[in-house]
Amino acid sequence: MLAKQERATNTSNVLRLDQPFSLFRGGVLTQTDIAYETWGQLSSNKDNAVLIFTGLSPSAHVASSTNDPNEGWWEFMVGPNKPIDTNRFFVVCVNSLGSCFGSSGPASINPNNGHPYRLDFPELSVEDIASAGREVVTALGIDRLHTVIGASLGGMSALVYCIMFSEEVRKLVSISAAVHSSPFAISIRSLQREIIRSDPAWNHGNYDSNSPPINGMRLARKLGLVTYRSSEEFNQRFGRKRKFKEQPISPPFSAEFDIESYLDYNANNFIDQFDTNCYLYLSRAIDWFDIAMHGGSVEAGLAKIKTESNLIIGVKSDFLFPITQQKEIVDLLQSNKLNTSFAPLDSIQGHDSFLIDQKNFAPPVREFFSD
Amino acid sequence: MLAKQERATNTSNVLRLDQPFSLFRGGVLTQTDIAYETWGQLSSNKDNAVLIFTGLSPSAHVASSTNDPNEGWWEFMVGPNKPIDTNRFFVVCVNSLGSCFGSSGPASINPNNGHPYRLDFPELSVEDIASAGREVVTALGIDRLHTVIGASLGGMSALVYCIMFSEEVRKLVSISAAVHSSPFAISIRSLQREIIRSDPAWNHGNYDSNSPPINGMRLARKLGLVTYRSSEEFNQRFGRKRKFKEQPISPPFSAEFDIESYLDYNANNFIDQFDTNCYLYLSRAIDWFDIAMHGGSVEAGLAKIKTESNLIIGVKSDFLFPITQQKEIVDLLQSNKLNTSFAPLDSIQGHDSFLIDQKNFAPPVREFFSD
Repeated sequence: MLAKQERATNTSNVLRLDQPFSLFRGGVLTQTDIAYETWGQLSSNKDNAVLIFTGLSPSAHVASSTNDPNEGWWEFMVGPNKPIDTNRFFVVCVNSLGSCFGSSGPASINPNNGHPYRLDFPELSVEDIASAGREVVTALGIDRLHTVIGASLGGMSALVYCIMFSEEVRKLVSISAAVHSSPFAISIRSLQREIIRSDPAWNHGNYDSNSPPINGMRLARKLGLVTYRSSEEFNQRFGRKRKFKEQPISPPFSAEFDIESYLDYNANNFIDQFDTNCYLYLSRAIDWFDIAMHGGSVEAGLAKIKTESNLIIGVKSDFLFPITQQKEIVDLLQSNKLNTSFAPLDSIQGHDSFLIDQKNFAPPVREFFSD
Repeated sequence: MLAKQERATNTSNVLRLDQPFSLFRGGVLTQTDIAYETWGQLSSNKDNAVLIFTGLSPSAHVASSTNDPNEGWWEFMVGPNKPIDTNRFFVVCVNSLGSCFGSSGPASINPNNGHPYRLDFPELSVEDIASAGREVVTALGIDRLHTVIGASLGGMSALVYCIMFSEEVRKLVSISAAVHSSPFAISIRSLQREIIRSDPAWNHGNYDSNSPPINGMRLARKLGLVTYRSSEEFNQRFGRKRKFKEQPISPPFSAEFDIESYLDYNANNFIDQFDTNCYLYLSRAIDWFDIAMHGGSVEAGLAKIKTESNLIIGVKSDFLFPITQQKEIVDLLQSNKLNTSFAPLDSIQGHDSFLIDQKNFAPPVREFFSD
């Protein structure tokens, strides 16, 4: 398995900015940490750097390495001879600003008072995640990225990176993203946040880190799991199979169907890993995101992108970021005469397909990076 | 408006059964109330009776009448000269067994001890809703229905009525229903129930009727509202419009977008009307429903239907009961040589379309009832 596999050299670092970091909605951080990992070697002319932004919940550990053999969240995509080939590319992945895996966020200590920020952390935008990623790129001495790539929130971050730092990127890969969140997706995330805020243990953000609002987080994560996948996948994996068939069901309303056990298992795994306030901040950043804020309209925003080539990937079974949203990006980039290819994939795992469906995802990404 | 409109004569009644009523999963009610309303006149040969089953939440008040001018939940469909024409048909609508608008359910007083049933109400199935409806039909002296019709849970009730009482129905109309719930739909409803059960005010079902678990109900209803409609409708109605644009948002995470205000408003309207335990029972009945329980397979179950003609309606934007599920019913009924027509509608209101989209829904129903 992985033990026999060739692995890239990896470094895991935290960049600390002691200069004030100004946020898109007006806040300022006096001290900012940005956690990142790298794989492979930066070329002498520094032209082979690939920056990866993550979805809402992952850390910067995108792939295993000689230093950290733990499987990464995109193991099939990044590594020696993988579609993003670390024998050729110097790959950088950042933990999003606002997250809880080394980067500054609501769970971090506020250096001004020695206490966790919690809700005193300034309002966070996708633009801030992009800017924090650019700080790492700059610190690594890279003037121009070969490619910026991301999926979901990461795809939004990659898009806006190309708008904000348009001279500093050659190529863009945006996966299962959108120029802004739809009202349907907003309604799902708003409800997740309200479920969490309704847990008395949330305590307006002032929970003890030893007793977080796990019930609210579990319920919100279940809603995430349901909307990250697809009805078709659930039909194939679970159907109406059930573990518990006794009558009457005891205790009343407890889980019977396999789909319910799946949600229980996966939600319980998540709540131990992710800080609640960080989740709330990142979730809200996705709702706020709107490329129209970069010039007055979506068209004006996308017109700022000057990449040499772009790959936009979408999944037909995704109903949270439906494929019409990726097609919209393609149409607008092409109308701006940018070299843009579209990969509408038949994956059945919905919005999460990029994490799972190597068969459909690896070929277009490999081809894009092969030239 | 309605004041000038011709209205049918209406009666509102409760049928009380003092004989034991045996439930599908093994329980028994010693005394059973079944609330119903009727419109129009039963013909002398009793061949013009139409039985309507409801979705999860409505009462039996399907339309306004001379006795009760309040607008009904299917006002555009039922009345004089409407698609289900009360000048021609004797229309009966029952409040589902297990509901809280006059029929026996978890909120009713248990005649054995004088206290509300709450979770002592026996396990409820869609089959029990059908059987309770049939008790009303029998009490009204009707041997054979002209048509049984329903949407959503009501469509399931109508389907299984035709299986259980196959000699007693001439025609079937099943709208936005299925032979069983998909695992995706189960996951949504299971999560709604868990959200409610997680509200401390639920208290294992033993809440005081003056202080029900309104927070859990509100959150569960919001999830219902999101999944009863469609992304396309939300795009058209709400887009990214917002009422509150101030920065920073105060209090943190409060509603900004119009879609969030819409969910707030509608969920708050619902929680005053519907008993929580009744909601839990009816929601679970939908998950349990499986026509395969009537003969060992879905095919064997549907093979028991002997109607003269059927109309199956589905909506292309419905992702809770997707149109593939209605097509499945059509294919199986047609393979049994039953005269079955299919109306796949372009409504954009998702699962709830039957309540709203008169333009698409009225014509096929009017045509079906016109012959």
